Amino acid sequence: MQYGFTGRIVDIDLTTRQVNDYPIDEATLRKYIGGSGLGTRILYDLTGPATDPLGPDNVLVVMTGPVTGTRVPTSGRHSVLSRSPLTGIFAESDVGGTWGVMSKRAGFDGWIIRGRAEKPTYLWLDDGKVEFRDAGHLWGLDTYALDEKVKAETHGKACVMSIGPAGEKLVRIASIITDGRDARAAGRCGLGAVMGSKNLKAVACYGQREVPVYDAKGLADSIRAILPGMVEKMKARHLYGTANWTLTAEHSGDLPVKNWRGGRWEEGAEKLSGPRMTDTILTGRYYCAACPVGCGRVVEVKEGPFAGVKGAGPEYETIGMLGSCCEVSDLEAVALAHQLCNQYGMDTISAGGIIAFAMECYEHGLITRQDTCGVALEWGCAGAMVEMVRQIGEQRGLGIILGRGVKAAAEAIGGIATEFAIHVKGLELPAHDPRALASTAVSYATASRGACHLQSLSYPVELTLKMPELGYPETLDRAESEGKGILAAKMQDLMSLLDSLKVCKFIVTGGGGIQPSQLVSWLNQVTGWDMTVDEFLKAGERIYNLKRLYSTRLGISRKDDTLPPRMLGLPRPDGGAAGYLPNFGQMLNEYYVFRGWDELGRPAPEKLRELGLE
Amino acid sequence: MQYGFTGRIVDIDLTTRQVNDYPIDEATLRKYIGGSGLGTRILYDLTGPATDPLGPDNVLVVMTGPVTGTRVPTSGRHSVLSRSPLTGIFAESDVGGTWGVMSKRAGFDGWIIRGRAEKPTYLWLDDGKVEFRDAGHLWGLDTYALDEKVKAETHGKACVMSIGPAGEKLVRIASIITDGRDARAAGRCGLGAVMGSKNLKAVACYGQREVPVYDAKGLADSIRAILPGMVEKMKARHLYGTANWTLTAEHSGDLPVKNWRGGRWEEGAEKLSGPRMTDTILTGRYYCAACPVGCGRVVEVKEGPFAGVKGAGPEYETIGMLGSCCEVSDLEAVALAHQLCNQYGMDTISAGGIIAFAMECYEHGLITRQDTCGVALEWGCAGAMVEMVRQIGEQRGLGIILGRGVKAAAEAIGGIATEFAIHVKGLELPAHDPRALASTAVSYATASRGACHLQSLSYPVELTLKMPELGYPETLDRAESEGKGILAAKMQDLMSLLDSLKVCKFIVTGGGGIQPSQLVSWLNQVTGWDMTVDEFLKAGERIYNLKRLYSTRLGISRKDDTLPPRMLGLPRPDGGAAGYLPNFGQMLNEYYVFRGWDELGRPAPEKLRELGLE
Repeated sequence: MQYGFTGRIVDIDLTTRQVNDYPIDEATLRKYIGGSGLGTRILYDLTGPATDPLGPDNVLVVMTGPVTGTRVPTSGRHSVLSRSPLTGIFAESDVGGTWGVMSKRAGFDGWIIRGRAEKPTYLWLDDGKVEFRDAGHLWGLDTYALDEKVKAETHGKACVMSIGPAGEKLVRIASIITDGRDARAAGRCGLGAVMGSKNLKAVACYGQREVPVYDAKGLADSIRAILPGMVEKMKARHLYGTANWTLTAEHSGDLPVKNWRGGRWEEGAEKLSGPRMTDTILTGRYYCAACPVGCGRVVEVKEGPFAGVKGAGPEYETIGMLGSCCEVSDLEAVALAHQLCNQYGMDTISAGGIIAFAMECYEHGLITRQDTCGVALEWGCAGAMVEMVRQIGEQRGLGIILGRGVKAAAEAIGGIATEFAIHVKGLELPAHDPRALASTAVSYATASRGACHLQSLSYPVELTLKMPELGYPETLDRAESEGKGILAAKMQDLMSLLDSLKVCKFIVTGGGGIQPSQLVSWLNQVTGWDMTVDEFLKAGERIYNLKRLYSTRLGISRKDDTLPPRMLGLPRPDGGAAGYLPNFGQMLNEYYVFRGWDELGRPAPEKLRELGLE
Repeated sequence: MQYGFTGRIVDIDLTTRQVNDYPIDEATLRKYIGGSGLGTRILYDLTGPATDPLGPDNVLVVMTGPVTGTRVPTSGRHSVLSRSPLTGIFAESDVGGTWGVMSKRAGFDGWIIRGRAEKPTYLWLDDGKVEFRDAGHLWGLDTYALDEKVKAETHGKACVMSIGPAGEKLVRIASIITDGRDARAAGRCGLGAVMGSKNLKAVACYGQREVPVYDAKGLADSIRAILPGMVEKMKARHLYGTANWTLTAEHSGDLPVKNWRGGRWEEGAEKLSGPRMTDTILTGRYYCAACPVGCGRVVEVKEGPFAGVKGAGPEYETIGMLGSCCEVSDLEAVALAHQLCNQYGMDTISAGGIIAFAMECYEHGLITRQDTCGVALEWGCAGAMVEMVRQIGEQRGLGIILGRGVKAAAEAIGGIATEFAIHVKGLELPAHDPRALASTAVSYATASRGACHLQSLSYPVELTLKMPELGYPETLDRAESEGKGILAAKMQDLMSLLDSLKVCKFIVTGGGGIQPSQLVSWLNQVTGWDMTVDEFLKAGERIYNLKRLYSTRLGISRKDDTLPPRMLGLPRPDGGAAGYLPNFGQMLNEYYVFRGWDELGRPAPEKLRELGLE
């Protein structure tokens, strides 16, 4: 057995109910590390241009990483990968919570789902065994209720991954939820619809196996030395969650306001801030497995129009998209919309972007109350925002069109609506503004799953983060375009590694201050490998290039590596990024040159040889 | 009668054969001047979102200007306007030759064509009368042969405007040709297909009326004073034609090479240069009516594979698109392709862009010899380029798809082909590179008919032209983005005026050195008006805004004001513009702010009030 791995990736065919092992040799593990990297390799090998994202030939790959289940801080994570029904291209989602750890304890480094079950089904992964169970009685349940039911039918301490009604109805922004009311999500790219298309309602797992660690003492010593400082540095995240960013975002011009047309919005941002949440609806904090920080929020809203909230509270991204992007400043409404998204199983980022899009269409008369079941879809109307979440989740009224994502919805609505559809490659922008943090422009344009902040997370280096091991001993000027193409590429490679090890990005970018050499050291302590920082970083580059190859094989090229026109040519009117527009073309070209990609945006043959990807 | 006008715009319905006058009052004339401006007003009033560009409800508007037919230098021009079947939006084409003058001599300031003739028809405008004639025996003729036939049937000195087989077959890049073998073209936007859709093969006119001039002596004195200097300043154009630009374009990085991927191409450019043409195939020079310069080329190729050329020779744009953009350096081949385009009645710019696009598709295996009737569509192959012109013009083989323009062709071919489709709003780029002359980027993105150099002609101010009356006493740095949005807007307004007066842009931008005050002075001398330079420039702004309104009414907005990805993010590899990419977003925003257009790119209400366009 390989240290850091249980040694088993299981390949489950829902059509035939066959269960096979999917063997991976150690050389492949070293090349792709695990999690996102290994998942990409598998996805690349099993799907391609002929794969229908919602057909039985698509696969859903769920992967842990080599450090998952060990004492490495924040290592309670897993990756979900597939070909996206929202964007049609490469899709992955990085998830916190407890699933990753429990999967390994149950004896699975990862699993692959193929085919389509004849009728609603759930899987029970019980200590190395795979059981197919009928889910007819669970179909239609929301993810919170489902979690309780499945635990009752399997094991009280099982970890459950499931889809809600949105995934069942193949809503293109459907998510996959784990940990029930604590709700951790594989949010982006519509992975819940892939699960729904396979008639797979849920997967539960339980086990008590240990993950073998090569140098347990060395690892423990290292963590003991680092942990207190890390906790101290990330204290604000513990106190206020990711929503601690809300006010800073407003001040720097990063916060999306009114579908990306607004600038200053301080009063609204204050009402949605992390401290405000702590002072009002917060009832507890949630720690993903192996996390010493606990940035997860637990909230409750007992009274008023948005009562009924109990459980996971909104992250900054949710606040930015369902809140400020819709000009909604009612925190309780955002908390309810967030919970509804979790229960229906829908991405809060895309949902917010879609509703802001719909509000702008409504402002311009492209949609009317005839279309919205009577809802006056006005900017800042909290009730309308929540109602739209319901219409999408339940697939009624305007929600039927909106559930396809802004790109397809704009095409259906027609005319000028595409002006309001703020996306890259079909994926709605998350809550960071490329006009406030220049590198974000090229990060979004080149992210392999569409507009994504997490696949690069380059912007912290433009604020406070120093990455000396990547060549950034000091932070960079956020309004400078030069050098940002290179920054985005380097950070994409590093983030690919964090997603492959399966540790939380925050230990690097969120104040944790961890550098690549520490990550390699942990990886070596867990696996017994002798990987150098160079080999490690090269693996990150390899993984990112393979993600690119997945989509270039589908026809993605330079033409798709762009930004919505609003981001290219309409500056924010006031506030912390007033009047600024980065030189996008210059950054993009710098990025391609640094990447060694050709004039079509494809990794060039010499780059592929260098990375062992011929 | 109004000085400068014959007083009659005729409104011809081909369906009913009704002929009416289309009255215009003097206030409207002053607001829109004539030509392009007045034509836009008429087009705006008669067509809209419900108009099918190839349906009987579309109209073709052909307009002269107030100075057409007078002694104002270069005033032998006319405008053709319609809703474009290529782009779906506003379309106009500015044409030289003799039609404008002859139209006025025949008693028509302009004419409007509506409806659809039951069978092939031509019109004979004989000294104020409109006659419908059968064109069954002319259908299928090329424009050169047609010209001779119609002259023989009407008047030996008649001026004939016609379509060739391309217009008959509704090829989306079909042009309208006047002056037979001297071939002046309403080239861009597929106006020939509009004529074809109406079963209108040709219009001939003849007359000997004089255009009344208010201050004939003052005008004559002014012209006498200016003419010798103007001729001297434009001597290179007389000697070498517009092709004199070829080598300068190559040196500055302006010349398109290999579908806009190339940089240096000096050897090829030399073979296509104006001096080379003068030394080889040139047999004469062509002067449009009232032109003292004679930049038109008359050429002959008697022998070799490209023999059979006799008549109008290629302009710089043709050389840039059918030549260098396809890496074809054989001047005789370009001359033949040019003549074929004229005979079929097709735009040489779009034809060149389309063939370069097809060559790149062929390079990447997206089209094969199966599709091309066996033609190896390789870069630089002169014979293949000429053969593709034939396939488009005759609508066979690959020409059927290519005749739709690069945008639609790329969609039909699919996948990465859209990467190679170099257009704005569906109109193929002309032969100037926005990466060599920064203002061209925003000029192309905002031109009202799609990628167009003529609607702004801002780049001469980045090279040698000084426009003190517009605030440019010195030329600007071509690699600087700042200020170029404003430059593009100011030049668009001025070019709208030149196109409305109906004088040649070269008297301003092509070395003539004429400033707006001189243009107003001529206009006042012709019409008896007391227009100030301010009122004149305001009319230019009004006209340009009305062109914008035409297309915003159809759903055009900021989202459409962009450039092909290749122009935004892929610099030229070497040569005179190596490595440079302008800051497009910054220029575009500057442009909108200067224009007073709103966040959707529509003229804002206060701007419309200011211009009297409420």
